[in-house]
Amino acid sequence: MDNCVFCKIIKGEIPCYKIYENEFVLAFLDITPISKGHTLVIPKKHFENILDCNDLYLCEVTKAIKLISNHYTNKGVHCDGVNIMNATGKAAQQSVFHLHFHIVPRFVDDGFDTWPKTGYQKEDLTKLADKLKM
Amino acid sequence: MDNCVFCKIIKGEIPCYKIYENEFVLAFLDITPISKGHTLVIPKKHFENILDCNDLYLCEVTKAIKLISNHYTNKGVHCDGVNIMNATGKAAQQSVFHLHFHIVPRFVDDGFDTWPKTGYQKEDLTKLADKLKM
Repeated sequence: MDNCVFCKIIKGEIPCYKIYENEFVLAFLDITPISKGHTLVIPKKHFENILDCNDLYLCEVTKAIKLISNHYTNKGVHCDGVNIMNATGKAAQQSVFHLHFHIVPRFVDDGFDTWPKTGYQKEDLTKLADKLKM
Repeated sequence: MDNCVFCKIIKGEIPCYKIYENEFVLAFLDITPISKGHTLVIPKKHFENILDCNDLYLCEVTKAIKLISNHYTNKGVHCDGVNIMNATGKAAQQSVFHLHFHIVPRFVDDGFDTWPKTGYQKEDLTKLADKLKM
């Protein structure tokens, strides 16, 4: 995609802090990190988000997330855990419309909370499950 | 795993609000939802988190996330987007130690923020990338 910043990074037209790359996937440091080692993992082919990404690239992205998360936990940044986060759609706070997953390294007592407070009031889950069942 | 609540759900020993199931994956409504249709997707084999999940199950979980997210966006709860969230490790706020991904449906102007404020001060990313590079 001509106007996609991540496609430009893939093509080398914009630099990045590369961590990992293979045939399908590129991973690089987020330039506005929320924790040490905050990393983005993207497919090297343009997909808008998880809704339109084909299974091959989606699986390769997921395998790279696992690989990098193990690297960061075992040595890398020596973190104690990671959060994996993805935003799909503008309403979900997606800002770059090229599929990307965030790996956010976590450390014991790092003092922040990735779990949003929403005020949502639970409805009848039996009825909802009946409606949503696939 | 004998003491794992999600393994008990898989075995049918504990009920759930099932949305989707196949040979590898089970998806059901979160009983403490933070938005309408908040769903958990789990592998039907016990893995603690993404660090130890084998590629087959990890890919199948990801494919189910995509399938359900498309269902929820197109009809289902008619959401405008989704956040995909995973906690790996106690330090990352993992509470059930059986791999699970959250699908959190999002709606235009739903008024909450899945992006944590951490106060992390960015360090030299060139040095950090050199250290983390795989």
